[in-house]
Amino acid sequence: MILTVTLNAALDITYDVPALVPHGVHRATGVRERPGGKGVNVARVLAALGHDCTVTGFAGGPTGAVLRELLAPLPVREALVPVAGATRRTLAVVDAASGDTTQFNEPGPAVAPDEWAAFLTAYDGLLAGAGAVALCGSLPPGVHVGAYADLVRRARAAGVPVLLDTSGEPLRRGVAARPDVIKPNAEELAGLTGSREPLRAVRDARRRGAHAVVGSLGPDGLLAATADGVWRAAPPSPVRGNPTGAGDSAVAGLLSALAEGLDWPARLTRATALASATVLAPAAGEFDAGAYEEFLGGVTVTEVGAGAG
Amino acid sequence: MILTVTLNAALDITYDVPALVPHGVHRATGVRERPGGKGVNVARVLAALGHDCTVTGFAGGPTGAVLRELLAPLPVREALVPVAGATRRTLAVVDAASGDTTQFNEPGPAVAPDEWAAFLTAYDGLLAGAGAVALCGSLPPGVHVGAYADLVRRARAAGVPVLLDTSGEPLRRGVAARPDVIKPNAEELAGLTGSREPLRAVRDARRRGAHAVVGSLGPDGLLAATADGVWRAAPPSPVRGNPTGAGDSAVAGLLSALAEGLDWPARLTRATALASATVLAPAAGEFDAGAYEEFLGGVTVTEVGAGAG
Repeated sequence: MILTVTLNAALDITYDVPALVPHGVHRATGVRERPGGKGVNVARVLAALGHDCTVTGFAGGPTGAVLRELLAPLPVREALVPVAGATRRTLAVVDAASGDTTQFNEPGPAVAPDEWAAFLTAYDGLLAGAGAVALCGSLPPGVHVGAYADLVRRARAAGVPVLLDTSGEPLRRGVAARPDVIKPNAEELAGLTGSREPLRAVRDARRRGAHAVVGSLGPDGLLAATADGVWRAAPPSPVRGNPTGAGDSAVAGLLSALAEGLDWPARLTRATALASATVLAPAAGEFDAGAYEEFLGGVTVTEVGAGAG
Repeated sequence: MILTVTLNAALDITYDVPALVPHGVHRATGVRERPGGKGVNVARVLAALGHDCTVTGFAGGPTGAVLRELLAPLPVREALVPVAGATRRTLAVVDAASGDTTQFNEPGPAVAPDEWAAFLTAYDGLLAGAGAVALCGSLPPGVHVGAYADLVRRARAAGVPVLLDTSGEPLRRGVAARPDVIKPNAEELAGLTGSREPLRAVRDARRRGAHAVVGSLGPDGLLAATADGVWRAAPPSPVRGNPTGAGDSAVAGLLSALAEGLDWPARLTRATALASATVLAPAAGEFDAGAYEEFLGGVTVTEVGAGAG
């Protein structure tokens, strides 16, 4: 089983509007709700790849109940921990005129110390049955900034490979706890290392503690600094579409291939193909299965440096 | 008891954002939820005026459950009829930089024929104990365009004075059923009569069937065409603030004064003072009680024409 952790899971709402008019009144012509949060997206992709997958994190309030209802029919096991506050909503307003999206994100429920303690107990229990774990996304209010570092240490103590995908100070602290993999995007890499030169940045991030650093560079693919070598993985051709969720699919690709015992070039090929196939799909957590199979044969993985042991 | 009907009740959500950036990503710094819909606002104001008040309409789904929870502590009786679909949300995004609001409204749940029949049964039962009824706002999907006309006829058959506050074709049909009062704003009056000249428009609207027409003209106050005369009611001085809900407060003023047996000048004085005091309050369904008492003494009611019998 692969475990994904989404501490700040969300009810993702999408409104279609004819055109966004600042300070105007809009009638939503379409309203859609989906289970959201990075770890939830990762789990959906893992399940589509045939992996047994469990989702944990927090859920609470009426929005948390809807989140659980929406997860129930999906092929993932839901092990969210109750919280008194309400699960946050995210709202994407899609403008039919331009196709552009305006996003509004709620901060999430305040997590009390006893709720955090209950989560740790659940997490330790789930780790016992996990082949790998992904820690994904932002922290809800009330969860201490070193939370991911703690979760990384617990996974490593349990002998479970751990991937961390977050940003800012939680990422900085988490990296120091020596996760097996981190997957920052260019912005997160720059925030962590101060460098906007990708090769320098992934190497620097690795020196800070992560065993492997996989930078996701949008249309330029992935750049990985690992103990076995440094590789660049490029998609076969540029794809146009909705990049939301591409990073989550890359995480699912890396983690599934790691769990299957594949080597780094194979992991990066799968992650790159999945990310590109996700850009072609309408929503995060989904990918174009036909394009994925096709892209698998077209991804180029090039060694750009030796491993650092 | 005064009954208010809100067929398309809502869960009103407000997000505070630092500044609205079209096609940007916004973190909501504040999130608030309130029970919403015009009839709900009217009921809150009626309750604040000391009237026994019952709210009906539809509620369903997780948002309907939250709506009921939010109504429970208020001094109004909740008699919403269950519906399988989910109560709509409305979202107001308040831009701290400008103070302006960008509004997104969901369409509301589709009401099935058996749900409409259940509502009619509940409505007839509630009418038996009502001293007056207000029919407020838009129709949810599935409810026929002549629904308000039917509800007006049932109220009149039961001998209960009925006020209709809606727009478009439901207003046009409803007027033909001869409600005691309609309270269109300038836009709704123009839509109904084709005239943007208020005095001509309120008289024309009255000829179409309403026993009395009270046009709400924003900062210009109210203009009423009734069987007893035609009056203009002007607030003591212009007020600056949030006009949302001012029309609902005017409805509450008209209806409460009608239920108390007051004459038209007294009804218009109360409605105008309440509407002005609502502009000073931060949210619909609320008014500045001190300002209301003060404004009561300052509203000017001028007769501008004779009654039409």
